[in-house]
Amino acid sequence: MHQHLWREPMVYDGSQLSPLWIFHQLGVAGDAIVAFRGLCRVDLTSMVDQADVRAGSPIFSEDMLHFMVEHFENDLEKAVLRQRLLVVLIGEELLRRGFVLRRSGDDMFHGDRKLSVSIATITPVSVVIHTGVNIHPGNAPVPAAGLADLGLAAAWEEIATAVMQAYAREMEGVHLARCKVRGVG
Amino acid sequence: MHQHLWREPMVYDGSQLSPLWIFHQLGVAGDAIVAFRGLCRVDLTSMVDQADVRAGSPIFSEDMLHFMVEHFENDLEKAVLRQRLLVVLIGEELLRRGFVLRRSGDDMFHGDRKLSVSIATITPVSVVIHTGVNIHPGNAPVPAAGLADLGLAAAWEEIATAVMQAYAREMEGVHLARCKVRGVG
Amino acid sequence: MHQHLWREPMVYDGSQLSPLWIFHQLGVAGDAIVAFRGLCRVDLTSMVDQADVRAGSPIFSEDMLHFMVEHFENDLEKAVLRQRLLVVLIGEELLRRGFVLRRSGDDMFHGDRKLSVSIATITPVSVVIHTGVNIHPGNAPVPAAGLADLGLAAAWEEIATAVMQAYAREMEGVHLARCKVRGVG
Amino acid sequence: MHQHLWREPMVYDGSQLSPLWIFHQLGVAGDAIVAFRGLCRVDLTSMVDQADVRAGSPIFSEDMLHFMVEHFENDLEKAVLRQRLLVVLIGEELLRRGFVLRRSGDDMFHGDRKLSVSIATITPVSVVIHTGVNIHPGNAPVPAAGLADLGLAAAWEEIATAVMQAYAREMEGVHLARCKVRGVG
Amino acid sequence: MHQHLWREPMVYDGSQLSPLWIFHQLGVAGDAIVAFRGLCRVDLTSMVDQADVRAGSPIFSEDMLHFMVEHFENDLEKAVLRQRLLVVLIGEELLRRGFVLRRSGDDMFHGDRKLSVSIATITPVSVVIHTGVNIHPGNAPVPAAGLADLGLAAAWEEIATAVMQAYAREMEGVHLARCKVRGVG
Amino acid sequence: MHQHLWREPMVYDGSQLSPLWIFHQLGVAGDAIVAFRGLCRVDLTSMVDQADVRAGSPIFSEDMLHFMVEHFENDLEKAVLRQRLLVVLIGEELLRRGFVLRRSGDDMFHGDRKLSVSIATITPVSVVIHTGVNIHPGNAPVPAAGLADLGLAAAWEEIATAVMQAYAREMEGVHLARCKVRGVG
Repeated sequence: MHQHLWREPMVYDGSQLSPLWIFHQLGVAGDAIVAFRGLCRVDLTSMVDQADVRAGSPIFSEDMLHFMVEHFENDLEKAVLRQRLLVVLIGEELLRRGFVLRRSGDDMFHGDRKLSVSIATITPVSVVIHTGVNIHPGNAPVPAAGLADLGLAAAWEEIATAVMQAYAREMEGVHLARCKVRGVG
Repeated sequence: MHQHLWREPMVYDGSQLSPLWIFHQLGVAGDAIVAFRGLCRVDLTSMVDQADVRAGSPIFSEDMLHFMVEHFENDLEKAVLRQRLLVVLIGEELLRRGFVLRRSGDDMFHGDRKLSVSIATITPVSVVIHTGVNIHPGNAPVPAAGLADLGLAAAWEEIATAVMQAYAREMEGVHLARCKVRGVG
Repeated sequence: MHQHLWREPMVYDGSQLSPLWIFHQLGVAGDAIVAFRGLCRVDLTSMVDQADVRAGSPIFSEDMLHFMVEHFENDLEKAVLRQRLLVVLIGEELLRRGFVLRRSGDDMFHGDRKLSVSIATITPVSVVIHTGVNIHPGNAPVPAAGLADLGLAAAWEEIATAVMQAYAREMEGVHLARCKVRGVG
Repeated sequence: MHQHLWREPMVYDGSQLSPLWIFHQLGVAGDAIVAFRGLCRVDLTSMVDQADVRAGSPIFSEDMLHFMVEHFENDLEKAVLRQRLLVVLIGEELLRRGFVLRRSGDDMFHGDRKLSVSIATITPVSVVIHTGVNIHPGNAPVPAAGLADLGLAAAWEEIATAVMQAYAREMEGVHLARCKVRGVG
Repeated sequence: MHQHLWREPMVYDGSQLSPLWIFHQLGVAGDAIVAFRGLCRVDLTSMVDQADVRAGSPIFSEDMLHFMVEHFENDLEKAVLRQRLLVVLIGEELLRRGFVLRRSGDDMFHGDRKLSVSIATITPVSVVIHTGVNIHPGNAPVPAAGLADLGLAAAWEEIATAVMQAYAREMEGVHLARCKVRGVG
Repeated sequence: MHQHLWREPMVYDGSQLSPLWIFHQLGVAGDAIVAFRGLCRVDLTSMVDQADVRAGSPIFSEDMLHFMVEHFENDLEKAVLRQRLLVVLIGEELLRRGFVLRRSGDDMFHGDRKLSVSIATITPVSVVIHTGVNIHPGNAPVPAAGLADLGLAAAWEEIATAVMQAYAREMEGVHLARCKVRGVG
């Protein structure tokens, strides 16, 4: 799958979580994962998670590392499985750097403070995932930690690149694993 | 999903990786995860991974903690995604107990030594997963570590139960996550 | 699946036939069936059945027992099969009470008079079903009968509850039936 | 879908529940429903329902009206939904003839006596259904009723034809219902 | 599948590429292919191909033979496979009339000049295909040929009918081919 | 997808039409198309087409160019669509070399003589396709032509390579086409 890192900052407001957004940015068709850094502000009308909408919980973080993923398939539950693995891979990258995070579903915590937000949903032609990792979570609506708290703010590009490579490798590995087994029964 | 732990030892020889094996053991229908402890010996004719068959690499471990999973659905790649999360959850349980494992796809390593084997495949009516975690890996065909090396041999039942609960919770969480979002685009 | 009966009246105007409507009402995620009583008025712009739109046939009934169902899957034809079984189960409940209805597809008739309306369709994240059973069908656009004609107006809550329980049991039974067979051939 | 009635008796022993059995008999390709009359004897090794295998409950009836269905699709749960509707249609045909049966899942009862057996399963290329309705259930393993008890033994061909027509019409109707709606949400 | 040819001219502006458009025109439900002749003008906001949108390439042709197809299924890649076969069948019809076209994906060329445009996409309830074959391509945005260049302008109705028949036959043949094989392995 | 040409002759007896056959030959996992040359003899017990089995028509050709394809997906009808495109691409390659073949479904004819055989079917983990093109069809059971009749026997390797490249390109193009459109409606 395609990988791309934008070094210039971009605001994430939820509009990026839409079909072919990556294609329109990069002009390359097919499954892709991209990353960028910037403010995160998703108001209630743009939110996809209806539990948050019901609870009136908007999303805000002053400075986040954002991952956007698009797979051209149509199984939403499968997309959630892929999303969970993306969160796992972020945790594994931070573990390699010496930080033990706690994962709960698609959330990551540093101690009791929330490090990330994530959502997966379906479009008419694909499934899409957003995962945002706090760098400086100033004014987040819940107790939050960020890469800066771990002394990793300056490493955001390296982390982004490592995670994208790991995700692309994991997805390729998952597909190949499915191409090497015989059925049983 | 159903969960069950057998305390009495059983040999895993690959025949358990078949449709409705859990149903025939327990008499309960539907998605399930079960665990037991015992020798692991899968000869080439019983092996599902055709890369291993091609390489002539049978599976052997003197003493393993085995997890068997069955989901009544028919997407093999999705089963591999679930399998990867099962391996992740085993790693997270060991991390909670203070041990940092390294995951590579569906394998777990302690240092350079392999801790586990895993496979996922499809049956005419379901998908099935086997993950075996060495307890005492004596005579394994590759450099191997086991729970005993971590001082966790006596905790195998607790670990088995914790992993099964975490897997059931994760799968339930994945399904509910898919039931709370609106589509986009 | 979740079940819920609202005792207070609500108007059905077609807007309820939408993704996560039940979730927004109840706050519980996952497959669900709910029921309520009230006026039914669906104008042409809100109608889902394009044969009715083409024929210019709006839906109206002064007083109906409404069932709303949502399943988080994406096969519209399968949803129609589930819808047919819901209509069957309503007929079976009335048969237990001594009334022989005639079913034709997703319609039920008492003699030549129409007792019900029903539709199934797909959303970006689910399939949804509405079935309305006349209580007092005053001013319906076609010759219509209602539960009141059968002397069952006062029993609407019991009927609603019995049908929801039967539907939940049927869907559970359908799923378990699929988990107990081996493949053939 | 194709329909065919054999007037000459045939034994049903479970071997007919296999892919392309109807095609090999008739030479017509595609979805089909066929019917015949004869002894029913399915021993444990031929049984598809693993709950019955587990319970050691073979199937036997001296004289049954058999329906065999094949749909060229690959969703086993959907096949169970179709199977339930086939059982419903048999009940509706008998209701038209004045007999009130009780349906429970895929079983039909006359009072406390079982009238029918049914199973649905999957093949590598299709899904298949068998439903057998007792005519004279002599030596059945459970208390059983038959069409003969209802005075309908002589009408078996008419009943078979009516049910096949109703099933073909229902399946066509289900498909067309799915082709006339717009999506919502 | 249903087939229909309109002899009176109609403008194609992209709005026809929508769910149930054929149903609303003809009142017949189910898979269908229809044809008509007329101007083709699709502006950027109506375009489905996002590569063309990104490139700012609208579609224009003064006089085209248009085919519209709808299949009530939900696999977009499969729709593209069907679309390719539609383009192939148009080429085969012209080959029978003595003209060798060159196909490249879903495009047809006469020498270096483009003869056709085509797109396939998904709707909430179906997949839809448009293929337009130039008759007089006046003012097309790229070097273009038309049926008139081949001396076939007057034969457009015959060609349309032959292609629709061939497509319906091909799709029926594809389905039947899938109903006559046993699985392997 | 992977491509491979064997220059040494191999007999095709139907056993090659099985899951992971290409993987076992080449050791590369994933979708693939391969080609080789050799005798073709498939007896009735090895045949997949049950219409041929029913008609008692075995397959024989003294010398054929064989294509074997495997896609790791599970839609048999979609496999037939891919198979038809493979046959089309063979015809287009021969057309480029100046020979007009006639295609009828998955058969190709030179005049009234049959040039090819083809079948597509499903395995527990994939779909597989075989297409054989006569080189010298000696003793074929029906009037047959071969590449030798077209003076192309010596070009079989070039033709095989060109067809494999065209098929891989077509399949890639089909997938990318599905990744560049927005949904409608």
